[in-house]
Amino acid sequence: MTKRQAISTEPYKGVRDFYPEDQAALSHISKVMRKVTEHFGYVEYHASVLEPAELYKAKGAENEEIVNDQTYTFTDRGGREVTLRPEMTPTVARMVAAKRRELGYPLRWYSIPNLFRYERSQRGRLREHWQLNVDIFGAKSLAADAEVIAVAYHILTGLGASGGDFIIKIGSRKYLDNLITTHNLSVEQAKVLRGLLDRRGKIPQDEFEAGVQALGVPPTALIPTEAPEDVATVLSLLREMQIENAVFDPSIVRGFDYYTGVVFEVFDTNPQNARSIMGGGRYDNLTQLFDDESVTGVGFGLGDVTLQDFLVVRNLIPAYVPPTQVYIALASQELLRDAIQLADEMHRENIAVALDFGEKKLGDQIKVATKHNIPYLIVVGEDEIKSGVFKLKNLDSGEEVMLKRDLQIGEFFRNLTTPQ
Amino acid sequence: MTKRQAISTEPYKGVRDFYPEDQAALSHISKVMRKVTEHFGYVEYHASVLEPAELYKAKGAENEEIVNDQTYTFTDRGGREVTLRPEMTPTVARMVAAKRRELGYPLRWYSIPNLFRYERSQRGRLREHWQLNVDIFGAKSLAADAEVIAVAYHILTGLGASGGDFIIKIGSRKYLDNLITTHNLSVEQAKVLRGLLDRRGKIPQDEFEAGVQALGVPPTALIPTEAPEDVATVLSLLREMQIENAVFDPSIVRGFDYYTGVVFEVFDTNPQNARSIMGGGRYDNLTQLFDDESVTGVGFGLGDVTLQDFLVVRNLIPAYVPPTQVYIALASQELLRDAIQLADEMHRENIAVALDFGEKKLGDQIKVATKHNIPYLIVVGEDEIKSGVFKLKNLDSGEEVMLKRDLQIGEFFRNLTTPQ
Repeated sequence: MTKRQAISTEPYKGVRDFYPEDQAALSHISKVMRKVTEHFGYVEYHASVLEPAELYKAKGAENEEIVNDQTYTFTDRGGREVTLRPEMTPTVARMVAAKRRELGYPLRWYSIPNLFRYERSQRGRLREHWQLNVDIFGAKSLAADAEVIAVAYHILTGLGASGGDFIIKIGSRKYLDNLITTHNLSVEQAKVLRGLLDRRGKIPQDEFEAGVQALGVPPTALIPTEAPEDVATVLSLLREMQIENAVFDPSIVRGFDYYTGVVFEVFDTNPQNARSIMGGGRYDNLTQLFDDESVTGVGFGLGDVTLQDFLVVRNLIPAYVPPTQVYIALASQELLRDAIQLADEMHRENIAVALDFGEKKLGDQIKVATKHNIPYLIVVGEDEIKSGVFKLKNLDSGEEVMLKRDLQIGEFFRNLTTPQ
Repeated sequence: MTKRQAISTEPYKGVRDFYPEDQAALSHISKVMRKVTEHFGYVEYHASVLEPAELYKAKGAENEEIVNDQTYTFTDRGGREVTLRPEMTPTVARMVAAKRRELGYPLRWYSIPNLFRYERSQRGRLREHWQLNVDIFGAKSLAADAEVIAVAYHILTGLGASGGDFIIKIGSRKYLDNLITTHNLSVEQAKVLRGLLDRRGKIPQDEFEAGVQALGVPPTALIPTEAPEDVATVLSLLREMQIENAVFDPSIVRGFDYYTGVVFEVFDTNPQNARSIMGGGRYDNLTQLFDDESVTGVGFGLGDVTLQDFLVVRNLIPAYVPPTQVYIALASQELLRDAIQLADEMHRENIAVALDFGEKKLGDQIKVATKHNIPYLIVVGEDEIKSGVFKLKNLDSGEEVMLKRDLQIGEFFRNLTTPQ
């Protein structure tokens, strides 16, 4: 290989490398997401990160801005405009529309895709994140709206949060439409109002109020009062499912243009974390982009970055433990074949074993086991091979047990992994 | 929303939509991959699909051709050249180099990334696929080469294949280097020879032989004879692990420039499927791109498309079963709140339940359960709510059992999911 100037080990700007500890945290979160979501009857789908650019351009004027300024869009060698998906909803709407007549409704689908945003401001915001997407299609009932909120609730509590750690704020696009009609706002003014509401947590309160007042809307109109009928029904259904930390909040509108009914966002109750953790709502017309018939949808997205921020503060990310159970070290390299046979036997007993090849001295081999957080150690020596009895050491507690090769090693780990 | 011309429901050219049945097949394969790989002590890492383009350009002349002609490379708004990764090895080498001094060796890592190739010829070849990548870093021992081959073997048998369904062909770059020296081949001729060998299964035998002869190499030099020392050691270590379907094959060289030692490919023994299912080998110098110190690596890639081709022919992809266990249908929409309570109770018993919201008549609700392949049905009616006794119907066998709400439903499903 010709010698060249060393190249950087940094990942591309704004994306993350997931070393095993990072990946384990993401896998833990994904596992809880999958378990809860599947308990509610959702099935997993997936799609490519590459989508035709027209999928995002079609959604309307507000979104065209996002497509042009905030997406990765490029032209391939065949002259096709391609976008790295910035959100999953247009993709799932496309997939549902493609098989609209074959799919049975209510249709419950989920996916955990990676999404891309080209952030111009580059203030440390990430350009790629992972996001659980949960959607029900073809159900008009407000029970569907309540169900997706319940799924979100059970994911957060399934990750160890209590109901007091977060609050579910529910708004309604219909309520907002009423407000717009009552105050005679133009299309342009309505857009400004939605934008102000959507950025409410991110801008100073007086800036928000001045903006609302400039539109002729008294800020008091946006203070929670009695919930409109749709929101009240959802709140009562949530109580049926023993979910009490949900409230009506007229300022919840969501950024995307396509929402048409109930919308919601989940906030950390810790005042130091003002940004919403997640959100969603009902969109009635998205599949109409592809087809004359519309299929109503309701769902949410839950991103890994905001979720981890919420969990880390509460110490709810478990300490890293590798899947490996036992490290086998060698007293001398001559014993490699014996060690391979032992590891092979243990693999057949469903024990996760990593084998050292004995290229370094024993002490350094054991350091590798500790560095990798592997809980148990077996050292293979001449005596152990002759006697068929091995010392299994717990590297955390220092505890040691002597186990016979043929039967007891397998039994020990079967007992260890039996659910309580 | 303004009415526009309908847009296509097709995915971007050359990529796939994964509907639940497709995703379930991919998840099944990934689950077996993870289980086997983790049993051998590997831990999962991950990285973004976006990489700086220089990562691929640096690898040498042959690869520059691939970068220019066969990758998705574009310039971002900040003027950075970005590539959608075409393979994972440069990424993992970058990540290892970045933390070279902190990581303990042997280091066993795996990942299941998606990879992109821009195929100009467009003969139905896919532009995105998923690929398990398994690597050991920092182990010189040929036992590491044997181990990664054993992992590949156990994944294929773990998916239901028998040792007779595939053959592991092992070559050696060192053997090839010998051949090149013996026949006084120039650098250019050596490259032609490697190319011929790599395409051997894809071109007619006489074309292959004529090409080899034109270089002054007798085709007999490429007929398997006694294995060179490195391959012989690997074969003997594999026999230690009871793996018998491996042979020396001097024509195995692998396409990539960076291999330096033992290389291998796995072939379907069905003559109708001549393409290799997977391959890998040892690369000694990849981390040197980033750092003066090199960390030796040995590993393989196993792609989902060729693997599924292998499995489908043998009927080794299990029939689709959703994670959902029970569908709850409503005798009338007035019972929705009662049904929500029942579903909520069942969720708390860890039963995966999908609820119909009763918007259609009962017969149509039950058709949805069948369409979604959900195995069990409960119909909520006035009598059931009053008595607290529900009829659980197996939609496949037609069998019915009457179960009391509070205790027996949970017990029934706990017994069902207890491992044998």
